[in-house]
Amino acid sequence: MRIDVLTLFPEMFDGVFHTSILGKAAEKQIVSLNAVNFRQYAGNKHGQVDDTPYGGGGGMVLKPDPIFAAVEDILASDPNEFSNLEEGTHPAGEISAETSSAVKPPRVILMCPQGETFTQKKAEELSQEEHLVFICGHYEGYDERIREFLVTDELSIGDYVLTGGELPAMVVIDSVVRLLPGVLGNETSAVTDSFSTGLLEYPHYTRPAEFRGLKVPDILLSGHHANIEVWRREQALKRTWERRPELLEELELSKRDKAYLEKLRTQSGKAKLNE
Amino acid sequence: MRIDVLTLFPEMFDGVFHTSILGKAAEKQIVSLNAVNFRQYAGNKHGQVDDTPYGGGGGMVLKPDPIFAAVEDILASDPNEFSNLEEGTHPAGEISAETSSAVKPPRVILMCPQGETFTQKKAEELSQEEHLVFICGHYEGYDERIREFLVTDELSIGDYVLTGGELPAMVVIDSVVRLLPGVLGNETSAVTDSFSTGLLEYPHYTRPAEFRGLKVPDILLSGHHANIEVWRREQALKRTWERRPELLEELELSKRDKAYLEKLRTQSGKAKLNE
Repeated sequence: MRIDVLTLFPEMFDGVFHTSILGKAAEKQIVSLNAVNFRQYAGNKHGQVDDTPYGGGGGMVLKPDPIFAAVEDILASDPNEFSNLEEGTHPAGEISAETSSAVKPPRVILMCPQGETFTQKKAEELSQEEHLVFICGHYEGYDERIREFLVTDELSIGDYVLTGGELPAMVVIDSVVRLLPGVLGNETSAVTDSFSTGLLEYPHYTRPAEFRGLKVPDILLSGHHANIEVWRREQALKRTWERRPELLEELELSKRDKAYLEKLRTQSGKAKLNE
Repeated sequence: MRIDVLTLFPEMFDGVFHTSILGKAAEKQIVSLNAVNFRQYAGNKHGQVDDTPYGGGGGMVLKPDPIFAAVEDILASDPNEFSNLEEGTHPAGEISAETSSAVKPPRVILMCPQGETFTQKKAEELSQEEHLVFICGHYEGYDERIREFLVTDELSIGDYVLTGGELPAMVVIDSVVRLLPGVLGNETSAVTDSFSTGLLEYPHYTRPAEFRGLKVPDILLSGHHANIEVWRREQALKRTWERRPELLEELELSKRDKAYLEKLRTQSGKAKLNE
């Protein structure tokens, strides 16, 4: 997979692209990660990439020309993709080409608060692509023509205000790259993947068995694996019920699960009566 | 404000802590940002900070001792805070001190998928603190005793799986620091803060007025500010209604807003009938 990030702050990506899972995936050539400063496409000697908004108001707005030029240059730099794009099939419609084939056009992703909320399902979808291009604004708004005519996806990572699209792009890239075959070893996948049960994780404990008087639950030291399984399932159900009850509604629960949840509800009802 | 991040990958923070808003806020001494490698608190010559889980299963679990030692060392390094903590008032209860005062104990924040979903409201709450300590695991789970006896807040930035807590910590730190007085200049605050109307932003346009045949809407070039205001409000309502209708339910809307939304609904109903 190839990933290009358009940003005015490419140095923000240095540490993240070279460390841990992303660094290893790049080293193994499973992914190629590039941060591109789109100021070089400003097309004016001051390197100006933003301007005041039409219609007045505060803030600055990213101009369309540098972003279009940067995306087109990235597409052109991959001869495979470029020559295989059908005219008009991609939102970056200015690009024309002669042939069509099975090569996928890249996804051009705008990180912005107005975007679709990013989820694990979207990460899985993006992990099937061959080329992702991220556009990161910083403080500024985006000229609407970028949104309408260049971008295939608008993504938001959550309902909070950030300084720019760089951190959100890193988040999406991390979640996508770790899904690529060969990136995660078996030893690292187990814990995080327990998220995929749809429940929050049960509590984990490791050595020492007693730390400052705080003990590991006896059951985990019992060696009785069937009982441990039951305990872990119940703990996961309990934590999910307490913290994210809406997740339970989407799950197919066993009879045993349902009986345990019913017990929790009854107990909590009694606790309220006794208050 | 002082922010310490416990991580096994402090180099991931280099680019982010020294660039843009965070870099400037640190330069102005509004915030002090420190990434601390907690491997130095391993307490064994191999620097081992994780171990296999009690009760079996895959994955590794972060041991309690290095994390407790690192947090306590951080608290002890700030004599003000340390000497003013009342015994037993803080979850890091092993620490005792003689006096009490108005100095707030630090918040110790665990980044994890089981945490409370981070929101702008939480960012505002955290921006009132004097000292934040973030704990970032990487692949591993956390020993439950860290969660129960050391941590004041568990946060998740969204429902997707990431390799570690580092990127989520950066996201929370960025959103909190930009709220600190003196960090954002007036020129940068306007665009992003429009989020605080509760609506998604209206479309922005800047020069050129025509780009590859794509024109800026006439109204924005009209100079008629009252009409522009009405257009922008309607566009913000329309975008919110199309993309995030649940946000509208939480807002107090004017009669004019309601009439416009009613018009949208009627039109969309007609569009469906004509399909």
